[in-house]
Amino acid sequence: VAVIGLGLIGGSLGMALRRRGICVSAYNRNPVVRRQAVRRGAASRVFPTVHEAVRGADLVVICVPVPAMPPILREAGLAAPGAVITDTGSVKQAVLEMVDRTLPGPSRFVGGHPMAGSERRGLKAARPDLFKGRTCILTPVWRSRPGAVSLVAGIWRLCGARVLSMDARKHDRMVAGISHLPHALALALMNMASRDRAALSAASGSFLDATRVSASDPEMWCGIFKANREEVLRSIAAFGRELAAVRRALAKPGGARLLAMLRRACSARARLGSVK
Amino acid sequence: VAVIGLGLIGGSLGMALRRRGICVSAYNRNPVVRRQAVRRGAASRVFPTVHEAVRGADLVVICVPVPAMPPILREAGLAAPGAVITDTGSVKQAVLEMVDRTLPGPSRFVGGHPMAGSERRGLKAARPDLFKGRTCILTPVWRSRPGAVSLVAGIWRLCGARVLSMDARKHDRMVAGISHLPHALALALMNMASRDRAALSAASGSFLDATRVSASDPEMWCGIFKANREEVLRSIAAFGRELAAVRRALAKPGGARLLAMLRRACSARARLGSVK
Repeated sequence: VAVIGLGLIGGSLGMALRRRGICVSAYNRNPVVRRQAVRRGAASRVFPTVHEAVRGADLVVICVPVPAMPPILREAGLAAPGAVITDTGSVKQAVLEMVDRTLPGPSRFVGGHPMAGSERRGLKAARPDLFKGRTCILTPVWRSRPGAVSLVAGIWRLCGARVLSMDARKHDRMVAGISHLPHALALALMNMASRDRAALSAASGSFLDATRVSASDPEMWCGIFKANREEVLRSIAAFGRELAAVRRALAKPGGARLLAMLRRACSARARLGSVK
Repeated sequence: VAVIGLGLIGGSLGMALRRRGICVSAYNRNPVVRRQAVRRGAASRVFPTVHEAVRGADLVVICVPVPAMPPILREAGLAAPGAVITDTGSVKQAVLEMVDRTLPGPSRFVGGHPMAGSERRGLKAARPDLFKGRTCILTPVWRSRPGAVSLVAGIWRLCGARVLSMDARKHDRMVAGISHLPHALALALMNMASRDRAALSAASGSFLDATRVSASDPEMWCGIFKANREEVLRSIAAFGRELAAVRRALAKPGGARLLAMLRRACSARARLGSVK
């Protein structure tokens, strides 16, 4: 397996695969990160170019931010003409369009999105169990080679993830609601609260949880929001309607409707459990 | 110290005080909880009535939900005429109005709000370090006896909390923004997402964090929202404006303004740290 990009996701993937005895060749442009990757067991061998890293690989996993993918797709596709290629980007429709434009032999591509992450970044935050118990969504295209999907699914299952397969548009809509929207809410709440320093200093659990992901990499999240703009705008609008319903229930005297809402949320959340 | 109510807050307070050698008499209406409190070191002695629990106490800490306070204020005030009385409710203006109506000798009352909690409930979730490093806000009234405030402050400092003192209205406004609003957002997000079971099953860190507190006690939170209705409505409206600004920034081509927002939130959140 060739892992392209040794950040939180690529580094964790390399560690998980190495521990299961799989040979991992990795690329990272930074020589310091390359050396750390070998030392921390995230790669068997590291290379300063993509074409060296992918040579002879059965599977190439591209773990760089979506905007950085096009030249890597082309270079990896040319240097490993027989390899199955997948990615780990948070949006999928934009990646599939990119693949159509840049990858020689697009039928060997399968989109991938491991639903795991952290507000922490880079190889220093990587850990071999990052994907354990998480969901990885694959978005094959109609002409994906049959063996390609099962090869990619097998790698993620090996890392402990549950694999779901769906259409790229459906993925983008779903992820807008359960991942991009929470990030947008954290962003708005953090910026609203940061105007009052005294209040911030007293903030406790509920606020800290609600804003944790606002400490994520701004460049990366700007890219994700833009790449999934329409669906994120749609989910923000849907949230606005839901919040207006809470506001109306609260504004009413009595409170029976508010209590019913609180009860519904409480039992739905309790079913999810405290960790995943 | 008499602790009235042995839930998460009362139980944790009892444990923290007992460990520092302070004698704690406690009241809880449930005999099972009373026995557990003694066994878990949350109280030196337990009583089935408020007047027995407060007899001879220097300080009475009322740790029951705000709607349950009036009869307890009256009973505690009559049975311990010399004691300073405080509470731990999440709203303060409503409590002060209640004190004026029900407590014999209101000048010995100091409002209190330890900014610590959990979506978990009851004595079973209590722990002696719950208040360590947290903020406890006191809301004295203009005629609070001088010694009363320092007695209450001293107890919270003993539990490891930082003490802030402010006007009850200011407290309610501030807490609406940093605690009640995050609960309202979690409520709306959870109810919105629970319509799509497939998406829920794939939810990961950002969603789970953002909705954690929606598993909190519905009755308790309905009471808190209603007791601080005007300020919560105001903070929801302010949040709506902030979210609209995010939406406008995202809708613009380019993304410079969105990136600036993300950067501002990221550095403000990073300054807060991951735990408090």
